[in-house]
Amino acid sequence: MALETRVPLARDPYSVWTGPGLLDEIGTRCADLGLGPKTGVLTDSNVGPLYAARAMASLEAAGFSPVLVEMPAGEASKSLAQAEAVCDAMIAAGLDRSSWVVALGGGVVGDLAGFVAAIYYRGIPYVQVPTTVLAQVDSSVGGKTGVNAKGGKNLIGAFHQPRLVLADTATLSTLPPREFREGFAEIIKHGAIRDRPMLEELSPAADLAPLMARNVAIKAAIVAEDEKETLDLRALLNFGHTVGHAIENVAGYGRFLHGEAIAIGLAAAVALSREKAGLSAYEADLVLSRLRDFGLPTALPADLDPDALMTALARDKKFARGDVRFVLVRRLGDAFVSRDVTRDDIQRTLARIRS
Amino acid sequence: MALETRVPLARDPYSVWTGPGLLDEIGTRCADLGLGPKTGVLTDSNVGPLYAARAMASLEAAGFSPVLVEMPAGEASKSLAQAEAVCDAMIAAGLDRSSWVVALGGGVVGDLAGFVAAIYYRGIPYVQVPTTVLAQVDSSVGGKTGVNAKGGKNLIGAFHQPRLVLADTATLSTLPPREFREGFAEIIKHGAIRDRPMLEELSPAADLAPLMARNVAIKAAIVAEDEKETLDLRALLNFGHTVGHAIENVAGYGRFLHGEAIAIGLAAAVALSREKAGLSAYEADLVLSRLRDFGLPTALPADLDPDALMTALARDKKFARGDVRFVLVRRLGDAFVSRDVTRDDIQRTLARIRS
Repeated sequence: MALETRVPLARDPYSVWTGPGLLDEIGTRCADLGLGPKTGVLTDSNVGPLYAARAMASLEAAGFSPVLVEMPAGEASKSLAQAEAVCDAMIAAGLDRSSWVVALGGGVVGDLAGFVAAIYYRGIPYVQVPTTVLAQVDSSVGGKTGVNAKGGKNLIGAFHQPRLVLADTATLSTLPPREFREGFAEIIKHGAIRDRPMLEELSPAADLAPLMARNVAIKAAIVAEDEKETLDLRALLNFGHTVGHAIENVAGYGRFLHGEAIAIGLAAAVALSREKAGLSAYEADLVLSRLRDFGLPTALPADLDPDALMTALARDKKFARGDVRFVLVRRLGDAFVSRDVTRDDIQRTLARIRS
Repeated sequence: MALETRVPLARDPYSVWTGPGLLDEIGTRCADLGLGPKTGVLTDSNVGPLYAARAMASLEAAGFSPVLVEMPAGEASKSLAQAEAVCDAMIAAGLDRSSWVVALGGGVVGDLAGFVAAIYYRGIPYVQVPTTVLAQVDSSVGGKTGVNAKGGKNLIGAFHQPRLVLADTATLSTLPPREFREGFAEIIKHGAIRDRPMLEELSPAADLAPLMARNVAIKAAIVAEDEKETLDLRALLNFGHTVGHAIENVAGYGRFLHGEAIAIGLAAAVALSREKAGLSAYEADLVLSRLRDFGLPTALPADLDPDALMTALARDKKFARGDVRFVLVRRLGDAFVSRDVTRDDIQRTLARIRS
């Protein structure tokens, strides 16, 4: 029943499986990977009570010895302090360099667990079991792991590819509606930069498994060509993220979900693409109306301080070496990194999309 | 004047330069590496006041923009909390993914700075400028970086190779005598596992630059063949370290310097090699007398609890998958990983070398 998408990396390629019921197949699907007997199942206080027992049972049935490590749910867990607490729990449980990690949860769990796997005994394998739309179509694939720093999101981390990704689409049914919807910001982003037909067909009634697989394929193709973002290719995935991250930074990590901040960031990126890259009004509106179809915001709240946003922008990873690099789309499906966007352009756009 | 030793890794080989005066050549020697303009010079409260100004001046003269980040001296700085503080300082100073790191100091600074470089913006380049014997002959070469966990030394970290190592032997003259001497534990270890002639000739009056270079060459050859310790080869460098780490763990990180704990660990490893691998009494005594020549301890203090040592040993990375792997020497220069050493053997040996 599950659909397979390969992430064809030159070293260590891996598969992403998408479909309902994969949670009960973790053990059997990990059995052929040459992994050690002990594994740390890392999850959070939302996902653990719902799904940890099934994950543990599946691993035990396949002969593994899983140890459950639960962290508090929420973005605040994406910290070095939490990474240390998880490492300490794994050490206390006797996990060593022959052990491995299962990341059972959404983007925060996946990023944190992947980072823990990258630094535990200088690196052990891990398997992603994403349980949110966001994690299934985006963060579980591609090996970007890490935590937030005081000065910005994801500034501390490692490239560490998973050995396998198991995206059980049945777990999406227990997501709170708001968290279900936020994941579609990344799907809409994928459509905008690489897949216009998907964007046109997209509706809240879509069949989930093939939709997730189609998005994984988009991300996998980009990651395979530019694993460590040394070219401009992987940077295209940042469409909407420059402004989105600044919003999260200024508003604090509680007010907006990641996908909601990205939705506003997409609105800004579309407006800039209209102005600087000739994007048509029709295609710009298509992105905005899809965002609204999923109840996602497209306007910048009036109470967010524009100066604070600009300061946060200047600290963004994408502003390397001081020159502004901003992802735009000429047409839907045709994205590029522009060096032609000025700070003034961004400031003007932010003013224009304010509600 | 400086001697070059290559670390011939398949990907990203690099050079280690050894000699007096290299501190003033950091800038010029880094100029050809294709590094960005901004660099974080990471040092500690002992080394900073002595050498940071010269390092900064050399970098500035070569056109770089260095930022100094100083941490407290001592093993306690090898923590995730300290790594985070350094990252925060680097973010505040505007260092980004195009920046790089200079590790100016001993083993703690090198391990911490290398780890920061491994995780900052998911990995930036770094250059080692080791200022202790220990760091020059051992920890600055080979890419093992990391911090300590509550449960044991170096359990959190990353493999991240430096782009260049500049070992200024003139900086060794300002080391306190005890810290100068401790570094010779690793030199004596190198002799025991790979270079008997060096061990025979070794004396406190040795000419430093060629001695450092000879030891770097020993380490480089082993690292090149087994970069990530996936074979048993790199594990040979752990000769004396299994018991040494347990001693540090049980005694706390203040009582013994690393090299002193390793010296006692070498005494234990030599005793076990006598018993289990046929090492001759003459060669065993040669190791012990060289340790004493440098004022290093060869007996286990009577107040260290043997049971606590055994518990600490069981947590050591070398005890992966539960089976004891212990490095022994048949003859000086001929080391191997034995799976024939039991917990009883270790316990008996510890009792025998108690003072």
